[in-house]
Amino acid sequence: MKLKVLDIDVATGFPLIAIINESDARKLDLHYDDRVKIKKGSKSAVALINISESSKTVPPGRIGFCEEVLEKLNSKSGDIVDVSLARKPYSVNHIKKKLKGGRLNYDEMLEIVEDIIKNKLSSVEITYFVSACYLNELDIKETIALTKAMINTGQTLKFRSYPVADKHCIGGVAGNRTTPIVVPIIAAAGITVPKTSSRSITSPAGTADTMEVLCDVSFPIKKMKSIIKKTKACLVWGGSVNLAPADDKIIKIEHPVSLDPEGQLLASILAKKKSVSATHLLIDIPVGKGAKIESIAKAIRLKRLFEKISKHLNIKVKVMITDGSQPIGNGIGPALEARDILFVLRNDPRQPLDLRKKSVEMAGIILEMSGKAKKGSGRKKALEILNSGKAYSKMLEILKAQKAKITDPDDISVSALTYDLTAEKDSSIKSISNSLISRAARAAGAPLDKGAGIYLHKKVGNRVKKGEPILTVFSGNIGKLKYAAETLKKYPAVCLR
Amino acid sequence: MKLKVLDIDVATGFPLIAIINESDARKLDLHYDDRVKIKKGSKSAVALINISESSKTVPPGRIGFCEEVLEKLNSKSGDIVDVSLARKPYSVNHIKKKLKGGRLNYDEMLEIVEDIIKNKLSSVEITYFVSACYLNELDIKETIALTKAMINTGQTLKFRSYPVADKHCIGGVAGNRTTPIVVPIIAAAGITVPKTSSRSITSPAGTADTMEVLCDVSFPIKKMKSIIKKTKACLVWGGSVNLAPADDKIIKIEHPVSLDPEGQLLASILAKKKSVSATHLLIDIPVGKGAKIESIAKAIRLKRLFEKISKHLNIKVKVMITDGSQPIGNGIGPALEARDILFVLRNDPRQPLDLRKKSVEMAGIILEMSGKAKKGSGRKKALEILNSGKAYSKMLEILKAQKAKITDPDDISVSALTYDLTAEKDSSIKSISNSLISRAARAAGAPLDKGAGIYLHKKVGNRVKKGEPILTVFSGNIGKLKYAAETLKKYPAVCLR
Repeated sequence: MKLKVLDIDVATGFPLIAIINESDARKLDLHYDDRVKIKKGSKSAVALINISESSKTVPPGRIGFCEEVLEKLNSKSGDIVDVSLARKPYSVNHIKKKLKGGRLNYDEMLEIVEDIIKNKLSSVEITYFVSACYLNELDIKETIALTKAMINTGQTLKFRSYPVADKHCIGGVAGNRTTPIVVPIIAAAGITVPKTSSRSITSPAGTADTMEVLCDVSFPIKKMKSIIKKTKACLVWGGSVNLAPADDKIIKIEHPVSLDPEGQLLASILAKKKSVSATHLLIDIPVGKGAKIESIAKAIRLKRLFEKISKHLNIKVKVMITDGSQPIGNGIGPALEARDILFVLRNDPRQPLDLRKKSVEMAGIILEMSGKAKKGSGRKKALEILNSGKAYSKMLEILKAQKAKITDPDDISVSALTYDLTAEKDSSIKSISNSLISRAARAAGAPLDKGAGIYLHKKVGNRVKKGEPILTVFSGNIGKLKYAAETLKKYPAVCLR
Repeated sequence: MKLKVLDIDVATGFPLIAIINESDARKLDLHYDDRVKIKKGSKSAVALINISESSKTVPPGRIGFCEEVLEKLNSKSGDIVDVSLARKPYSVNHIKKKLKGGRLNYDEMLEIVEDIIKNKLSSVEITYFVSACYLNELDIKETIALTKAMINTGQTLKFRSYPVADKHCIGGVAGNRTTPIVVPIIAAAGITVPKTSSRSITSPAGTADTMEVLCDVSFPIKKMKSIIKKTKACLVWGGSVNLAPADDKIIKIEHPVSLDPEGQLLASILAKKKSVSATHLLIDIPVGKGAKIESIAKAIRLKRLFEKISKHLNIKVKVMITDGSQPIGNGIGPALEARDILFVLRNDPRQPLDLRKKSVEMAGIILEMSGKAKKGSGRKKALEILNSGKAYSKMLEILKAQKAKITDPDDISVSALTYDLTAEKDSSIKSISNSLISRAARAAGAPLDKGAGIYLHKKVGNRVKKGEPILTVFSGNIGKLKYAAETLKKYPAVCLR
């Protein structure tokens, strides 16, 4: 069918979208999310069809092109194009198969993942894929297939050196910023650590947000490689490199109903680690009320799955199940966490001992598993590296390679407005809720306001006197400070005995 | 946050959509499918957020409004509006609950259905609902709840007369146009029949397409009521009246992966029947290869579900499981089917006897179940009404009330170009595939070309001589005629012994 082009002055991103009038849709027998092949001379494009019910946007006889389509076909308003029904991508059949309870093999997963990356699938189709993976849970074989498909459709980093280590935390614990301490310790021991981290999605800070207080974190993959060549390690934002890119698009679709299918969680984590050629991997699964994993049973199940799948990917893995019942470290929020990290690396008396202890333990495990320390002596070696200042020196090297902004914790500025939550009686701290502390820290403006957040003066078990501050809220905005204080009143994050 | 309005000159339909730049999305902590409340003076609107990654469509500081938003807020380019994060509708929680394996009660179903109709849910959210209902199958209680929710969110038709009968066929059998024969027979016996039918989606004709050859089928609900008042019955297109409107939106979402969750099928059919206050209902489930239901076991399962749910809706139901192994009637396509119908109603010697027989049987059952014929004598009474010409007179009344175009079968024009499929040897017909005959009829141009389609000269068991035509393809377009002939060659719809 011949239609006349109408320039719709909007960039819709991908997939390509073309809009036709309802009457032409009937003539072409087109329905929602059908695809058309559009030909103009020797050029052609496949677009998803949107149907305009009124003649206002697109009248009969016309076809509306968004900017991406105009560009692809080198077309302008008034051009005549030929429009015909195009096949759905084969991957839609695989999605149907999974919906109907079938099992997908590697080739099928690859086709789906490729089509997601190439923007060939509509959001409705991706949603069916995500639902199917959630409700007809992926088995081990499928999870491995999805992981490999994700790896093989993104960029990868290769190293001549060995070992290459990585770590990952399942998350949900406020603070808990071990990565920027573990990485310089193990890098100082000669291990390559191509660390990519995420920004916060629903928490007050991600490792990338925290590191950004100290240095740049967005680098193209080439630059990331040269940083690692120089310093053995890096601490960059994963979003700036194209590792396993299907993941981001899937997460976007999961967001509206906050789904988190287990198979996809595993595939997403392991694909990113394999993409940087990690040979050794430490996974931290904190368990506790308000953490992402709330039951030991689920943690053990995950641990086993990580072990099984890593084996197939030829990655040596250790999974530690840790105490996630309260925040780790004192600062919650990018700047406050960055300060804690430098305090620990510099052995500053203001350092949070729980954060130090956990980081040393983790570094010790990696040193042992990668052969840099004898069995049973990893913790000791990690402590040595930390106490000797070698870890801090390594951190300075990394920061320098990443265009350091700040290297001294006392140069870090936190937001100026504060609110103290004080004890109403002499007592001791019974519990601190990760999710409610995070909520209040976000209310104060973290992570966008890097100086905002919460500083915990007390942790579970500590005694407090009446009137003594339990925590301090920092914010750059009086409205947000009040909102955070109200949030803490409405949803008490700290319980006294 | 204050943003400046940018007029995006596109009508996107509903839900309302506003576009902001990625940097503002970060500031407002907005993600895909989040909602914002937009305030301009005393007016406000809730819109789904689209995020523009480039500054080309929407630069930072601006908010792009599609026409519907501009209209709702009475706003224009340059206006300053206040934008804040809005809650997701509660129905999203119910969808999550269903995804996680929970059971939904009436109030929850109602909230979901209401939000679908009010365009408050995004297509991704509706997709999650559809997937959840497919994969965590609706139980009887949930199906009843969904059915009632659909009824109570649409228009309903009430009658003082009793009984009010309706029929429904699950479909998949080519031809099989019993409705326009059954309706005048039972209406002539004094039964009220507020019949709404669908147009074809993937078949060569729906009852509404076929009736449209003879009269108008699009009427507002008021006019539908007045037609029934005049003639006791009607034969209109369901799409023109607002009965159980949630259904259409759900079907649209099911289309891309051609899902058909059982619970939704049941709810959709029964909601439409209850909305026209049917007291008696006959369901036809044809079973056969290539029909919608291919196994007797599945048909029996559906039959039981129809019976159970109808009881809760206070509808007397009979479910007949019929032979769906080959097309019923000779004509396939709107005009060819319309001709068959008038042949039967006028007792014309050219009438297809299988269509006549099935229609009489169905009418007989409805006459018995609604007390218009004694048990065992329904078929006889239906035959009497048909043979006496009363059914044809009733049809003429209905056609007249619906602005008749044609009442004599010989006035129906079929497409001029024909192709005969002839027998290659003396033999008999072994099988005729519903799905392949439909495919060829669509290739010839049906249902859009109303005169296009296929006429079957022979049915299963009939003898054919070498060179004798088995079927004739009709088309208004030489290209389509050729395409239909090729389709029949590539996918043989008729097998000889």
